Amino acid sequence: MKLAEIYMQFQADIEMIENELEENVQAEHDVLTDASIQLLKAGGKRIRPVFVLLAARFGSYDIESLKHIAAPLELIHMGSLVHDDVIDDADLRRGKKTIKSQWDNRVAMYTGDFIFGKALETSTYFDNPKIHQILSNAMMEMCLGEIEQIRDQYNLNQNFRVYLRRIKRKTALLIAVSCQLGAIAAKANTYIQNQLYQFGYYVGMSFQITDDILDFVGTEKQLGKPAGGDLLQGNVTLPALYAMHHHTDIRRKIDLFFQDIEENADQINDILAMIKNTDAISYSIKISDQYLQKAYETLETLPNQKEKRYLYEIASYIGKRKF
Amino acid sequence: MKLAEIYMQFQADIEMIENELEENVQAEHDVLTDASIQLLKAGGKRIRPVFVLLAARFGSYDIESLKHIAAPLELIHMGSLVHDDVIDDADLRRGKKTIKSQWDNRVAMYTGDFIFGKALETSTYFDNPKIHQILSNAMMEMCLGEIEQIRDQYNLNQNFRVYLRRIKRKTALLIAVSCQLGAIAAKANTYIQNQLYQFGYYVGMSFQITDDILDFVGTEKQLGKPAGGDLLQGNVTLPALYAMHHHTDIRRKIDLFFQDIEENADQINDILAMIKNTDAISYSIKISDQYLQKAYETLETLPNQKEKRYLYEIASYIGKRKF
Repeated sequence: MKLAEIYMQFQADIEMIENELEENVQAEHDVLTDASIQLLKAGGKRIRPVFVLLAARFGSYDIESLKHIAAPLELIHMGSLVHDDVIDDADLRRGKKTIKSQWDNRVAMYTGDFIFGKALETSTYFDNPKIHQILSNAMMEMCLGEIEQIRDQYNLNQNFRVYLRRIKRKTALLIAVSCQLGAIAAKANTYIQNQLYQFGYYVGMSFQITDDILDFVGTEKQLGKPAGGDLLQGNVTLPALYAMHHHTDIRRKIDLFFQDIEENADQINDILAMIKNTDAISYSIKISDQYLQKAYETLETLPNQKEKRYLYEIASYIGKRKF
Repeated sequence: MKLAEIYMQFQADIEMIENELEENVQAEHDVLTDASIQLLKAGGKRIRPVFVLLAARFGSYDIESLKHIAAPLELIHMGSLVHDDVIDDADLRRGKKTIKSQWDNRVAMYTGDFIFGKALETSTYFDNPKIHQILSNAMMEMCLGEIEQIRDQYNLNQNFRVYLRRIKRKTALLIAVSCQLGAIAAKANTYIQNQLYQFGYYVGMSFQITDDILDFVGTEKQLGKPAGGDLLQGNVTLPALYAMHHHTDIRRKIDLFFQDIEENADQINDILAMIKNTDAISYSIKISDQYLQKAYETLETLPNQKEKRYLYEIASYIGKRKF
């Protein structure tokens, strides 16, 4: 079963969610709409909505209801991308110009705020306050993850635990919560809700670690931006952490590099090569695979139905993708 | 009845809300907590929580329940202050150093996001999805108001309607919603909910217009910052709008001033004097008073109980305050 086939089976429902997303950012304000629609069009895999739909198949599936949780989850992801751009000073994301580079940081900040607000408002379709609580909590945790990332920038002494907690907050929780909320919205039983949350968490960890690996080994064409972006922004991820831990020369090199990144920017390819020359990449892949394995094991506890197979396929794709 | 006496009557309950606020920003993250607590300590009149409490007296008042809506409303206000600082490049707010000046814009942005998320999470105490909807909607409208303010900066051709809509979104709605949600949380009847919303809206309009007037006529000591801040940031408020509309020399002066504000900053006192020399201030006071009058009239439709008198007193204070 290929990934495209899974998407195909949900095509009509994914389109409904796309429409819901587009309606959600159709505010009366021109600037806001332009900015938001542009972000919407930049697209992405809509992985969070797809997890909602698949998880909901373990309960009573109703797309009219589900779109009110699938869209908010994607909106929260979009809002975080907008705010990321304010922060990262990124000129390119998925190869398109960011909102920031065309308008300015201030509008981008309030656009992100608006999108967050819209996400939470859309989910009030559901009477169940647990849904709003999980959603607003996920948003808060994401912010804490972002703040931790700022705090940990340029810090060579952070340990693996700090890294793992940060990516849990930044990435894994929103995927976990997508699976969980799909199940809750479809009124699946609590056991299934919890297992799907766990599954999403493991997949999300694998997803982010893979992302962090790709920033070292991907090509500019694959990534839509040059490799080494994380280190150039002072972000220390698993491959660099591992390499520094085992090779004092790499640690020294990165330490000097961080003294003045702008001045030293041309050293980035040397540093990437040094790290790729160690077993840092294979170690990171191993850790990502361990999370993926746990995701598979969690899936085994779910009822046997075809969506289990779909979740397996998507998890594999996410954990093993090459770009 | 003095304002202080009204606050005194609610002292225990306001303290409970203060505690709720403090607990709400006690995240595990040190940086975030420091930043948030600092903002909390900077204080303010807690006018939104007080409106919640007074409105709730028209239904069944229960502070244990009410604090879960009073705190979120103040948190949304606080979140907007944090994001305002990112934008305004303000060095002083209420005479204290802002979060921005001590940490940086990026942490401030995510701290604001966190506070918004926390606000919405706290309100999930209530089962009623209408409460979450009104709250998230108020947050969105506030963002639109902020974006409108950015869009309208340096624009001499905006009309009064544009100004009024902007301050409605930026300020009046959150006060309207504070009154409304107090009534909803206390299960007052729908008529009372709506009248309290209207009352809050009129008070909020009067409040913001007064604020905008004070930026022209207040002293640095009263304002905690130099007068003329709005024009120095390119924000065109009611007094300037009126003065430009009736005096082409003032319009020309401001037009030139806006060409290069940094270069022309020393002209601000001249411009303030020119505007104060017209009837722009007395006109603006008249408009503020008209809103205040409508607020009083709305109050008349409410049941006769002492909180009606309190609301009247607070409205008068807010609409007529001198700093």
